[in-house]
Amino acid sequence: MTSTHTPSTRAEELDVPSGLPARVATPRPGDPRLARLSLNQRTTARWSLREAVDGCVAAGIGSIGVWREPVAEVGLDIAVRMIGDAGLRVSSLCRGGFFTAADPVARAAAHEDNITALDEAAALGCDTLVLVPGGLPEGDRDLAAARARAAEAVAALVPPALERGVRLGIEPMHPIFAADRGVISTLAQALDIAEQHPADAVGVVVDTFHVWWEPGVLAQIARAGDRIVSYQVCEWITPLPADSLLSRGMMGDGHIDFGALTRAVAAAGYTGDVEVEIFNADVWAAPGADVVATLARRYVEIVEPQL
Amino acid sequence: MTSTHTPSTRAEELDVPSGLPARVATPRPGDPRLARLSLNQRTTARWSLREAVDGCVAAGIGSIGVWREPVAEVGLDIAVRMIGDAGLRVSSLCRGGFFTAADPVARAAAHEDNITALDEAAALGCDTLVLVPGGLPEGDRDLAAARARAAEAVAALVPPALERGVRLGIEPMHPIFAADRGVISTLAQALDIAEQHPADAVGVVVDTFHVWWEPGVLAQIARAGDRIVSYQVCEWITPLPADSLLSRGMMGDGHIDFGALTRAVAAAGYTGDVEVEIFNADVWAAPGADVVATLARRYVEIVEPQL
Repeated sequence: MTSTHTPSTRAEELDVPSGLPARVATPRPGDPRLARLSLNQRTTARWSLREAVDGCVAAGIGSIGVWREPVAEVGLDIAVRMIGDAGLRVSSLCRGGFFTAADPVARAAAHEDNITALDEAAALGCDTLVLVPGGLPEGDRDLAAARARAAEAVAALVPPALERGVRLGIEPMHPIFAADRGVISTLAQALDIAEQHPADAVGVVVDTFHVWWEPGVLAQIARAGDRIVSYQVCEWITPLPADSLLSRGMMGDGHIDFGALTRAVAAAGYTGDVEVEIFNADVWAAPGADVVATLARRYVEIVEPQL
Repeated sequence: MTSTHTPSTRAEELDVPSGLPARVATPRPGDPRLARLSLNQRTTARWSLREAVDGCVAAGIGSIGVWREPVAEVGLDIAVRMIGDAGLRVSSLCRGGFFTAADPVARAAAHEDNITALDEAAALGCDTLVLVPGGLPEGDRDLAAARARAAEAVAALVPPALERGVRLGIEPMHPIFAADRGVISTLAQALDIAEQHPADAVGVVVDTFHVWWEPGVLAQIARAGDRIVSYQVCEWITPLPADSLLSRGMMGDGHIDFGALTRAVAAAGYTGDVEVEIFNADVWAAPGADVVATLARRYVEIVEPQL
């Protein structure tokens, strides 16, 4: 490696998890291109909330997508203060949902838990609760019925969401998860549900990993318009990692056309934060700061210019 | 295990790959419930064509879904004689397609190879060539363009298909394969292409593994009507096996509602064979005769009563 005198050459920095030299310089704190970037906590899953907040500040990332479990670990009040003191926005709270149980008692419990999640989002100053619908109940093969229960559960959450000023973001999930995680499989299907409710109550999450393959996805993004409550980016890579839950890649390492999707999201009027949410064992095994540096580079290279 | 005196108890037989006792008796050759069952060769991937033909005859299965590679191993003429002497029908030839290359020379070669496949189907007395579209070219992120090339390639194959009396069966593939194997992701999308051509030239393959999650799939099956050229059954199981290409399960071991899908296929007017096509390392590791016995049991238990 030669020493670097030009800031555009950063041969000393390696991308995670590819191990290849960085293709662009890491944007520094204060770089205006970072203005809308958000770190979803799951991308640095080994970091505590404290570490994630500090990592965002150190990297100049002004927004964080928070998960309920690490918030619960420190307690909601402390989490609110920690994030507030750091001056970070909370781009979304992950996650509510999981309301497809066939058992009415379990469904009622899920409803109550989602109301708690709405309270948490409001306390965090976060206007979006991400809803992961949930899968088929054990031994149950009636996907249409599970989808109908998901739609009913969303409807039941509309009044408490409006009361709290928090929007419900239905996250359509890649069909790889239709059985065990998310029965809403397309953006079109999520919008069919969302459009039954006021736009300030129910929207959709556009996650590139989940929707990139959907026939007509650009038209569906246009249809979504101001119902897009969150734009999440991560990559579809092949061969698919062995654990399908951890099969997401770093933007630029796979097959997704981030240009077309990002331009469509921008054209639909979305002006919110862009969350990087990557579930991947190799990413999780790397030092958090290296992960954040890579995603910031890839974001300014691939995503931000299209916004 | 107790000895069995009632034919409905077959505790000595174990299902593949679960290892659990068989739930129903194995149907014997001549059982009318086997009339439309077909063994797709890939389900017993370690068997040669000779072994697969003999395995079908021994189990009383009158139809076989043939792959080009094992046919090429013995030579087309010998394969035709082998299958004809055994009195088997060929329910489909797998597979043509793979025509999404960006390079025109590669696309032209794919077209020629598909014409050869049509010739092989005709020689085998098989009226259906299954088309697996192919994935994105290396480094290419333009899924819409790849889909358009697939549609063009189908159109170019219509005249040679009509000449040979072989129908092209577009196989929509689960979005898990959209990047690397099949860019046509839904039955709706396959029908949009097929409907541009005569029904005796272009149809669709309904494979439960690929389409079970599709929103509105029952309506799409009804829409397909006489364009259904092949009905293939296998299961979506969780957790998904590590190799996504080998992630298919034995009917009854997973999440698919075979009742609803099979009734819809029957109501659409499909009267052809029902192929069992399972790509799964555990199934492949088992003795072929045990695999065939299990699939025959599951077929008469779960699928055939719905036809």
